[in-house]
Amino acid sequence: MKRGSLLILSGPSGVGKGTVVKELRKRNDQIWLSISATTRAPRPEDKDGVTYWFKTKAEFEDMIAKDQFLEHACYSGNYYGSPEGPVDEMLRSGRDVVLEIEAQGALQVMQRRPDAVSVFIIAPEFSQIRQRLLHRGDTTGDDLEKRIATARWEYTQAPKYDYIVVNDRVEDCADEIMAILAADKCKAEYRKELLKEDD
Amino acid sequence: MKRGSLLILSGPSGVGKGTVVKELRKRNDQIWLSISATTRAPRPEDKDGVTYWFKTKAEFEDMIAKDQFLEHACYSGNYYGSPEGPVDEMLRSGRDVVLEIEAQGALQVMQRRPDAVSVFIIAPEFSQIRQRLLHRGDTTGDDLEKRIATARWEYTQAPKYDYIVVNDRVEDCADEIMAILAADKCKAEYRKELLKEDD
Repeated sequence: MKRGSLLILSGPSGVGKGTVVKELRKRNDQIWLSISATTRAPRPEDKDGVTYWFKTKAEFEDMIAKDQFLEHACYSGNYYGSPEGPVDEMLRSGRDVVLEIEAQGALQVMQRRPDAVSVFIIAPEFSQIRQRLLHRGDTTGDDLEKRIATARWEYTQAPKYDYIVVNDRVEDCADEIMAILAADKCKAEYRKELLKEDD
Repeated sequence: MKRGSLLILSGPSGVGKGTVVKELRKRNDQIWLSISATTRAPRPEDKDGVTYWFKTKAEFEDMIAKDQFLEHACYSGNYYGSPEGPVDEMLRSGRDVVLEIEAQGALQVMQRRPDAVSVFIIAPEFSQIRQRLLHRGDTTGDDLEKRIATARWEYTQAPKYDYIVVNDRVEDCADEIMAILAADKCKAEYRKELLKEDD
């Protein structure tokens, strides 16, 4: 059985990570998108186990104590994290797993999982991030400037990733990530068992 | 300009390296196969600059003294080596370069060129190497046993390569190598200049 690849996909807000993930799943519907756990209150559009795994603070802290997260963080008083169990289950069954996470979390997973392959998505020009955030219409003023500052910091972290892909045409971007996934499976460290002699 | 990739392709005699290279060039005719230099006498079928670069012993030793080889070795009293100059010229022009070499040379190039991506080709079963050599008909008896012994040693070196690919169906094998080449171009270290801010 071919092992699945663990793909860390990160990049600044507004770069189009969601669109890239959709395109990847169009190419291979067996790619599984990891679902985050959170302690924030569910919104009307949320569905437990689909948009998030909803946990109480006690449950979440128990999972932290048991070291059950690939990465976790606290934003505006709520916990968010990627549970490791379901990810490993999918990988064992041979499916590729995508972790679409922000850079702080990505760096945590790189440390914890040397088997992960990490991809940082950038815009063709940095200035397009501002334009994309503006056109999206859900960010204005101070919030916009904060996101630009975060994006700037995230760009400084990009050399720590294995790969950088440019989201110009989403199809080209997905082609490159599919090649990265295919190459990952050929790594010598994962194919040592094929060297056994039967001569 | 996209930089070209330097691909080290190795694997035991009889594994079908030549067929794989042909298939790669069918996919992309811009892939350039590095031509070795040698001091052995040209045979009727040889053509200077096509099958080999033919050099005198003095010329070859002068190139060694000037450190102009990616790797070189002496077999049955003749020098063989891969000149570095033409390889770098092709890489600079954006073309991928394939070095189809035996394992000793491959290990030398890995040391010298950390930018090279290395692929070791194996047979689906080790025992098939013997069968392939026998069917090829140019090896018998002692020579066959020597090649099997060399193949056995080469297999022990396989974990030093970046990737291992199985030459079962040559098309699948070429698919994997094309993915490895595509992924190589996405490596973060080669794309740092894309992070420059224009904001």
